[in-house]
Amino acid sequence: LITIAVDAMGGDFAPLEVIKGCLEGARQFQAGLIFCGPQEVIRAELEKYDTCGIKIEVVHTEEYLVEGEQPAYALRTKRKASVVLAIKAVKEGRADAMLGFGPTGGIMAAAVTQLGTLEGISRPVVGGQFLGLAPQTMVMDLGGNLDCRPDQLLDFAIVGTIYARKLMNIENPRVALLNVGWEEGKGNEQIKAAYPLLKASGLNFVGNIEGNDVPAGKAHVVICDGFVGNVMVKYSEGLGTAIASWLKQELGGKLQGAEIEKIGQKLLRLTVPADTSGGGPVWAVNGVVFKGHGRSRAPEIAVTVGKARQVVESDVLGALKTELARVKSNMPGLSAQEG
Amino acid sequence: LITIAVDAMGGDFAPLEVIKGCLEGARQFQAGLIFCGPQEVIRAELEKYDTCGIKIEVVHTEEYLVEGEQPAYALRTKRKASVVLAIKAVKEGRADAMLGFGPTGGIMAAAVTQLGTLEGISRPVVGGQFLGLAPQTMVMDLGGNLDCRPDQLLDFAIVGTIYARKLMNIENPRVALLNVGWEEGKGNEQIKAAYPLLKASGLNFVGNIEGNDVPAGKAHVVICDGFVGNVMVKYSEGLGTAIASWLKQELGGKLQGAEIEKIGQKLLRLTVPADTSGGGPVWAVNGVVFKGHGRSRAPEIAVTVGKARQVVESDVLGALKTELARVKSNMPGLSAQEG
Repeated sequence: LITIAVDAMGGDFAPLEVIKGCLEGARQFQAGLIFCGPQEVIRAELEKYDTCGIKIEVVHTEEYLVEGEQPAYALRTKRKASVVLAIKAVKEGRADAMLGFGPTGGIMAAAVTQLGTLEGISRPVVGGQFLGLAPQTMVMDLGGNLDCRPDQLLDFAIVGTIYARKLMNIENPRVALLNVGWEEGKGNEQIKAAYPLLKASGLNFVGNIEGNDVPAGKAHVVICDGFVGNVMVKYSEGLGTAIASWLKQELGGKLQGAEIEKIGQKLLRLTVPADTSGGGPVWAVNGVVFKGHGRSRAPEIAVTVGKARQVVESDVLGALKTELARVKSNMPGLSAQEG
Repeated sequence: LITIAVDAMGGDFAPLEVIKGCLEGARQFQAGLIFCGPQEVIRAELEKYDTCGIKIEVVHTEEYLVEGEQPAYALRTKRKASVVLAIKAVKEGRADAMLGFGPTGGIMAAAVTQLGTLEGISRPVVGGQFLGLAPQTMVMDLGGNLDCRPDQLLDFAIVGTIYARKLMNIENPRVALLNVGWEEGKGNEQIKAAYPLLKASGLNFVGNIEGNDVPAGKAHVVICDGFVGNVMVKYSEGLGTAIASWLKQELGGKLQGAEIEKIGQKLLRLTVPADTSGGGPVWAVNGVVFKGHGRSRAPEIAVTVGKARQVVESDVLGALKTELARVKSNMPGLSAQEG
């Protein structure tokens, strides 16, 4: 049985939907739960459900992060914030994974402070599948790291390879650099410097791809600076939404209202990231921390419990450590650079 | 009567479609033409059409750029390339504008060498409307400039403002920085440094926007590094194409084949840049140089002649010089920086 520590107070519909969804998920995926937050609130919620047979612990705290706070600042004053206590449970070995639906910045900051990053990686990485139309493609980074050094892009490629192997079941994922042209030697200074690192990495590096190759699924792991990734994923959401509303107009009078509505909803699911995936791991911290989407409700939250369990059971963290060591041992120049 | 100098040998369907299209355009928009290229080829083409009443000159050369050549290198060896002679006609006052459908790099390099850039701008700028779904939005730069300095982003904003005012008829266009969040202080180093420059510029700067705001048309002029713009515009094309083919499947059996085909084509026109716009001016060079899409055929080429004429007649170049001088005179720190 694995145990998941949950920040009961993080997320748009916390604590009600978080507690409800985690209970559903715990039953479905056979996990124990540690809820962190104000105990009277949590216990009152727990009483509403049949919790028989689910191992539940409550860790009490009155402190938690609030949407809109600057996470680093808030964590300095709220040392017992629910997100911190949940991650501490992982650190102290009382939980196998932490699950949170609160602000990304808060989860990442708390994870780095409590768990630290894996050897050779200075900051956690954010990325994942984001486009339903290209389900075999993940992008890294999606906004966690701006102004990346070239060796950080190599880190993204290592992490992305493990992500694709373990969570997308692609044994030898194709890794590509997102660029303005496919030829070697093209691009900005960052990409031109990252290219030889990837080429020497021993990963399945297929070279540069361009923006149009991403929805076409040309690579499994698309590597870019978090600034570029963030603009792209949000642009994708914006374009999907714009096309869906254009389509409703266009199909008006040609199909029945309910059918049009269904096609529109389907298109949004295929293009809007929040509707495609249930969140993802915070990568490269020394422990399993899973960030779920803030707007998740109980059914999505239950699914996320299953995903967090998968990350633990498939030993993603161990595989990542091994791959990091393998790549970096072949590239002695890098360790010095990062020292 | 304005005169347009044409590189008869540039473009996927040159010289046949270029000559045909320019003749159509010249008649429709009352322009004189100077065709640059091998005279026997050009004259043979001209004989196929009724050119009565159109003022035509042919400037002979055996040299021209070929797709796939490295433009800067090719121009060093082909000093009388047709693209160069066409731009020289503008430099020497024999033509009001140059029109080319060949490789962007070649046109830009020849334009800079022959005409130079406007005072205070070091390199030409590439940008324009690219999304049919957001026709009141233009993005600058789209790939001509990578690793931009913050003051280059200010240049893009000045050029973009004139573009929107003169070619989109928006008197006071909203200018925004493309960023990973809307708050001032967010972003990578480049954007954080550009923000105060734009704020002090006297342009109608509305702050940061995110990727999803672009298709929503939240700003008229979207400013970004050419790397980011290039990825975004190509991603847009890729996603539009992917959605169009998904849609055909989805509508199969629900609508008639011809109707499905029509909707798919419409969606491609709204999302694929080459189908939306007919090209654009090469900005910030000291003369009117208009780059048309390489895959244009005669009908699009005729339209492009009209657009080039509009750039000349609305005195875009004069307006840009005035605006550059106005903004830069208010920001004395900049001139030193660019010295």
